[in-house]
Amino acid sequence: MEFSSKLLENAVYEISQLPGIGKRTALRLVLHLLRQPKEQTERLSFALQNLRSEIKFCRNCHNISDTELCEICANPKREESTICVVEDIRDVMAIENTNQFKGMYHVLGGKISPIDGIGPHNLNIDSLVEKVRSGKVKEIIFALSSTMEGDTTNFYIFKQLEPYEVITSTIARGISVGDELEFADEVTLGRSILNRIPFENSLKNS
Amino acid sequence: MEFSSKLLENAVYEISQLPGIGKRTALRLVLHLLRQPKEQTERLSFALQNLRSEIKFCRNCHNISDTELCEICANPKREESTICVVEDIRDVMAIENTNQFKGMYHVLGGKISPIDGIGPHNLNIDSLVEKVRSGKVKEIIFALSSTMEGDTTNFYIFKQLEPYEVITSTIARGISVGDELEFADEVTLGRSILNRIPFENSLKNS
Repeated sequence: MEFSSKLLENAVYEISQLPGIGKRTALRLVLHLLRQPKEQTERLSFALQNLRSEIKFCRNCHNISDTELCEICANPKREESTICVVEDIRDVMAIENTNQFKGMYHVLGGKISPIDGIGPHNLNIDSLVEKVRSGKVKEIIFALSSTMEGDTTNFYIFKQLEPYEVITSTIARGISVGDELEFADEVTLGRSILNRIPFENSLKNS
Repeated sequence: MEFSSKLLENAVYEISQLPGIGKRTALRLVLHLLRQPKEQTERLSFALQNLRSEIKFCRNCHNISDTELCEICANPKREESTICVVEDIRDVMAIENTNQFKGMYHVLGGKISPIDGIGPHNLNIDSLVEKVRSGKVKEIIFALSSTMEGDTTNFYIFKQLEPYEVITSTIARGISVGDELEFADEVTLGRSILNRIPFENSLKNS
């Protein structure tokens, strides 16, 4: 694509760096913004910059939060002894939506994926092990997407937790293998939390 | 969707204001940005803001341009007497790509669309009529999408130009090169038969 304007070309290029957005779509989005009041672009631009520079993560569960301790971790009614291990905030939102879980979360920030250069040390695994070592945790529920990376991550953490007395379970595979957690319907996701099975059992059927 | 962070919610909201992007996609894009180096978000944010505040339009054809007169209008080799009327910069880029047109463009900035509140006075129509009135223009080629809005816009401009001595033409509607005849819609096929051209002419441009 040849552009008549460097400003336009630059904006299109930066938008097309986002996943799933090609140059054509980027150009469509930019032309839309140009037809809207200037304030819309300013709000968008500011919101992105503000988010990126001010973003905080809960010091306990590592979820995105505006406060040092997120609402869930700060809620005394949640059961501290049960921790649900998830990939990112989308999974926390999806599980909260089911109203089936009253424990706490632990957000890993991703899955082990050698292809993408993500190893165990890029994820919030040490702090999870630390929580278990402290002795307050009775059960760890793995709720990662059931993909190869998810299973690898589950297994890695399971091995790290083996020395400690803690029950490990995984959400029931009511969700189709290969599907992303965030797209599951509420009933299926809710049941899969209620019907979680011992982690050892999950190794048998795979 | 309930968010644990106002910053996140705000960024997701602003992105989801873009056409064709829902809240889920917006959240995916924001989480992607959070995983990338801070600089990527800063570049994106700056590019959008810069574009919106610095954007200029060619004073002759109204196309997006960094200079007062765009490259096409400033090129002495282009034929000033032929003007191709298009909706926006995407059409200019598409036609330039064909290398088949050596005239000038006139960018309307949209189509007449009462539903969207766009009337003739929101478009660059007066300056086109002015160009024709000056007497330098021999032919006006309409190259708008063949939708109801496009046809309405064509017809409105055609009526405005009636008092002046100028040839008006519209790009040929027909079956795309390489397309199977059986899959073409009836209207297109009908028009391509009515507006058939001498066979010798079809040999020239291939």
